[in-house]
Parts: sequence; C-alpha cells; structure tokens
Amino acid sequence: MKIGVLGGGQLGRMLALAGYPLGIRFRHLGTAQDTSAREVAEHVNAAYEDHDALAHFAEGLDVVTYESENVPLSAVEFLSQHVPVMPSVAALRTSQDRLHEKLAFAELGIPTAPYAEVNSLDELEHAAPRIGYPSILKTRRMGYDGKGQFVLRQPDELRMAWERLHSTGLILEGLVPFDRELSILAVRGRNGETLFYPLVENVHADGILRVSYAPARDAQVLQTLAEDYATRVLDATDYVGVLAIELFQAGAQLIANEMAPRVHNSGHWTIEGAQTSQFENHIRAVVGYPLGDTASIGHCAMINIIGRIPDSPQVLKHRDAHLHLYGKSPRPGRKLGHVTLHADDARSVRKRAEELKREISEPLAKHPTADMAHASFYED
Amino acid sequence: MKIGVLGGGQLGRMLALAGYPLGIRFRHLGTAQDTSAREVAEHVNAAYEDHDALAHFAEGLDVVTYESENVPLSAVEFLSQHVPVMPSVAALRTSQDRLHEKLAFAELGIPTAPYAEVNSLDELEHAAPRIGYPSILKTRRMGYDGKGQFVLRQPDELRMAWERLHSTGLILEGLVPFDRELSILAVRGRNGETLFYPLVENVHADGILRVSYAPARDAQVLQTLAEDYATRVLDATDYVGVLAIELFQAGAQLIANEMAPRVHNSGHWTIEGAQTSQFENHIRAVVGYPLGDTASIGHCAMINIIGRIPDSPQVLKHRDAHLHLYGKSPRPGRKLGHVTLHADDARSVRKRAEELKREISEPLAKHPTADMAHASFYED
Repeated sequence: MKIGVLGGGQLGRMLALAGYPLGIRFRHLGTAQDTSAREVAEHVNAAYEDHDALAHFAEGLDVVTYESENVPLSAVEFLSQHVPVMPSVAALRTSQDRLHEKLAFAELGIPTAPYAEVNSLDELEHAAPRIGYPSILKTRRMGYDGKGQFVLRQPDELRMAWERLHSTGLILEGLVPFDRELSILAVRGRNGETLFYPLVENVHADGILRVSYAPARDAQVLQTLAEDYATRVLDATDYVGVLAIELFQAGAQLIANEMAPRVHNSGHWTIEGAQTSQFENHIRAVVGYPLGDTASIGHCAMINIIGRIPDSPQVLKHRDAHLHLYGKSPRPGRKLGHVTLHADDARSVRKRAEELKREISEPLAKHPTADMAHASFYED
Repeated sequence: MKIGVLGGGQLGRMLALAGYPLGIRFRHLGTAQDTSAREVAEHVNAAYEDHDALAHFAEGLDVVTYESENVPLSAVEFLSQHVPVMPSVAALRTSQDRLHEKLAFAELGIPTAPYAEVNSLDELEHAAPRIGYPSILKTRRMGYDGKGQFVLRQPDELRMAWERLHSTGLILEGLVPFDRELSILAVRGRNGETLFYPLVENVHADGILRVSYAPARDAQVLQTLAEDYATRVLDATDYVGVLAIELFQAGAQLIANEMAPRVHNSGHWTIEGAQTSQFENHIRAVVGYPLGDTASIGHCAMINIIGRIPDSPQVLKHRDAHLHLYGKSPRPGRKLGHVTLHADDARSVRKRAEELKREISEPLAKHPTADMAHASFYED
C-alpha cells in the first residue's frame, strides 16, 4: 500500500511517520524547499501545473491525500482521474475560499461571524459600517498563520487596509467577542464511520497558534454541539479523513471560524495524548481501514516551536516532554516543531506549559504578520 | 545529528521512526535482504568485513549503534576509530558469547542456571550428569529465536544433540524450574543517568517470543531485585543505551537467562504503553540527551506477528489495537510485525490478547526450530 501526499511539510512528515507502522509507504509531492517530509520519505519535486509530473507522481499509488488546502484544485482534479484523492474535491473547494466556507457553514446552519464580500474600496466602505469594528479584512484565498489579513479598528484605516491587501477576492469579517478559541477534530472513514477527538483549547499570538490544551476544560456540552456541527460538514461533503473546524466559544454558543480538510496543528497533541493520533486515523480513513480509538490519555499541552529551535536537551530535561522537530530551517514566525507535555491533571500541565513556553519562545515578533491580525487563527 | 545503525531489520526501523521526531537522521548498514529499515531511512549495503565500506558508512555520522549483538566485533572495533559506537564494545563482547555472559553474570553476583562449556562429545558426556535433565545444548554464539539449540531429556540423546550442533563452542545449560519468564529493560545515558521500565512478563513458544504483558503483575519486590541486577551490568560495562536482561522467576528469585545490549522485542509495548518508548530512550542515550520518563500508561499486551501477516483490518477492527508491520516478507517462524493492545486493567488486556493471538497466529509450526527448544527465550 502506498499513499501519495501533496505537500512536503511537517504535516506530510508526520503522516508518513504515523503510516509506516501500518506497513504503508509514502511519496510526497513538493518543492525543492520542502525539507520536512523529504527527510523521511520518497519525494518528488514538481509544480502542480505540470500534469506530466503529476501523472508520474501518481504511478503505483493507491490513494492520494494532501497536507494543505492551498493545493490547486486543478491538480487535485487532474490526479483524481488517475487515483482516488481524499478528502473529497468538494471539501477542498469549500475550504480554499473563506467566502465559500462561510456560505457552506450558513447552509448547514452553523453560526459564523458576520461577513461581507469585498472586491473594491467602495465595497469595503459600504460593508464596514454594517460589519462594525473591530473587524478583519482578509484575502479569501491562500492565507495562513495570519498572513493576508488586516485588523480594522476605525473607519480611517479602511484605505490603508485596502492598499495593503489591494486585491479583488477579499472578505471582511466581524470580530465577535468570544471566551476562548476551540477546535474540533473529526475523522470519517470510507464507510461513513465517524469519530471525534475531544475539543481542544487554542491560544494564538500574532495570528499563529502557540499552545493547545487538550482536552479543553468544562466542554462536555460544547463537545456535543461541536460534534453536531462537524457531522453536518462531513456528511454534506461525503468526507473521508480528518477534518478540523476552528471555533470561537461565546457563552454556550460556538461560532465557526474556518475549517481545514486535513490534519491540523491543534491535533498534534494526539500523537502522545490520544489512543490513536490524528495522523494515523487520517491514514486509516483514506486507505479504508477501521478507525482507531480517539479517546484522550490524561491531559496534554502542545507548545509550538516558532522562529527559532531550542537546544534539544533544554526541552528534554523536562522528563515528560515530547519533542517533535520538522527538519526545517529557522525563520521568524515559522513553525519549526512542537513539544507535547503530558500529565494526569489539567492544572499542572497548564502551569508547566507556561514555563516551557517562556523558555523556548522566540521574542514576540516584529515580523510582518505582527500588526496585521490578533484575534483570528489559521492553518499550519 | 545523524546516527548510524548496524543492521537493517525491524529494530533499526523502529529506532529511526522514534528518532525522526527528535530531528535526528539515520543511515543503516545491512544486506540487500534487509527491507525493514530501508523502507524508512538511508541504507548502505555492505559486508561487515569490508572496511572501506565501513569507513564510507561512518562519514558524517555523529554516533553509531547496533540493532543486533551478532554484529562482528571486528566491525565495531574498526568503526570505533572513526566515530563513537554505543553501547560499549565491552557489553557487546560479553553478550555475543553465552559462556562469557554466564561468567559475567557470575562475577557480578547475578544468579544463572547451572552450565558447562562443551567443545566435544566427550565433554558433553562428562557435563550432562552434573547439569542434569532436562537441559539445553546451545551454540555459544549467533543463536536467536531458538535456533542453534537442542533440548536434552535423557542420556541417550547426547550423541544426537552433538551431531546436530557438532561444533566447538557449545554450552550446556540446566533447565531450571521457573514460575514465569520476565525481562527488565534499563536505559543509561552518557552521564550515567539510569532509568528502568517496569518488568515485563513474556510467553514463548517454539523458542520465539509470542506475547509480552506489561507491566508484569505482582512484581514490586522483583522490580527492585531486577533493577539491582541490571545496574550491576550497566555500571560494569559503562553502558550507554537500552539494555535488556531476560530473567526466569523462581519464587522470590530471579535467574538471569541472557542479556541483549540493544532495544528488545519484549520492550515493543513501550511505543504506546510507556511515556517514552525504548526506541526513543535508546536514541536519547546514545546522542547524550536527557532520558525520557519510563513510566507505563495503563496495561499492555504485545503480540508478535509471526510467519504470516494478517489482513490489517482484521487487526484494526479491535479499536485499541496498534499495528506495527516491519516491511518483511513472510516465512515460517519469522517476526513480521507486532500488535499492541492497550487498556486500563491487566485482566481485560490478557483476555483480549488471547483472542487476538488466536485470530492472527500462524499454526504452531513444524519449522526447524520447533523440536529444538521449548523453554528458553531469545532475541529478535
């Protein structure tokens, strides 16, 4: 059994590491700059536009999946003629465009923040009073880690925001007041079997996920609601694989922020913290195997390593710390690895996560994303 | 950081899979027949006698370790001139020869079964009455999975045993009555830091490990004794890495059977069942990182997949089952993978392990090892 993965980053790397024990082999498609998956699996350098290379990539593969929703739809559609691609093109199409995503959530009765389509300064000026302040102007496509975003705090910033992003294909989103950021990870098999991981609580800074706590505290009722929302998306797209939905909690309400049709940074804790990791369950789903138990084991904190790599012994001197490095070279704001702490109770894991975060964090950055978004959270 | 591993089998494969998250890369040395590690890491085909190839293999490596105690000492000694090799040559030398091993145990005050050196039929005939029946005649070197052994039940079998093994360099070992087979896995860092995994209970058939249960039941007092014995071996050899010692329990006594200077089949449960796996801790030790927590999480049963590979869904339909396939082609008596079951209580994990074992086992075999040894247990 051999799986093709579109993308050669850390998610592809961790998919391969989770799939090898099942006797599955991997081939990644990426660029020459993708070092992460290449270190652990066969790698093909090719552009998504090169159909000959795509056809060559697909040879001998049993199924293809992807590690990013930013893979061009045309590449996935082309590959689908040669080999099954999962999750479905429908799910990918929706998640590639923030406007389509909002429309899909609305159609399924899942609450979102107020939003407006923006294709010109004029449209922005009309939409802003209705959406209110603060709000965020975002590119509809290709954003991640807070890139392609501008936080609007007052009317005189509209022109500057427009000039910064100057693009058709924007969306203006209202910033809803929320108590905390959560995410639900679901996995659905080829036969429709569906399992959910416990809700995760996420902490962002500079638009980048910094820490996840799992399971989220006091989330029993919210878990049911989140599973209901996820099920609607899974069923509507005949989904196969892991799906992540990012949510804002406001009281008893959950507001969908965005979805990712793939394994997700807020699920990295599952490698040590769940009976079966999100990576293994994604693999099991796309090859048609029974899914593994998603129950959590104790309590976890997952701390992203961003911008600079700490010395391994500095991390590993914490005896319950699990270090995951991605084989990437440091750059401000770049995700280079993560550390998972694992303990029996939620309180102590939080305290120790705070300590470890201070020890290993890059200084909160003046890199370009810093002044552009504070309240939203995005994919890998 | 890059580690060289002598041997390209499943232990080398699982070492690489455990080391990648730490940002470590791997190069294995093996034969063209070694498919297991080759699937997941760089592989060099070379004979251990080819010093040019060994020197080439060592280029750019930070440390070399091995997955088998049957690697020629001369190769390790040669490599030691180019790159640090761990565990130490002293530990390797001792474990390669059952006679030296027995002498080392005796020197350290660790009980063993009675034994005698045998180099001729005459010596065998003299030794047998003293050692008693049943006893096992074994080759001193290169045995594994019950190979190179002959069980002696009565005097008229001496000649047949001698003819079967017909070698200088044999050892006759008394079969001591025992309650159960246990193993202790220890790990010692470069700075002498030492940790122990909980004792494991092992079940063999046809001289091959079939099932391990961890932690072993009712083993608190024995744990202290086993750790004491392991510490003596570790300190005497200035050991770095994971060490396994196989033990027979007879009442309150532990009798050392043999040691393995490497990760061990009876430690495979640690991948899911301990805070840090034996593979990760071996890697951490040999590169000089702090060791990880060896505490067990719940209760595990590890069932070897031997001789034939079951369909993956047949295993994975058990939702708590973790499947590990090694990328090897089936052959009677060959270790092809393992399954770990993981539960909160020891009783239910045992019951379910029995069921799963029946479902996936090859028929107890008439392959060559079957009539040769029943009561001893050996390495991978």
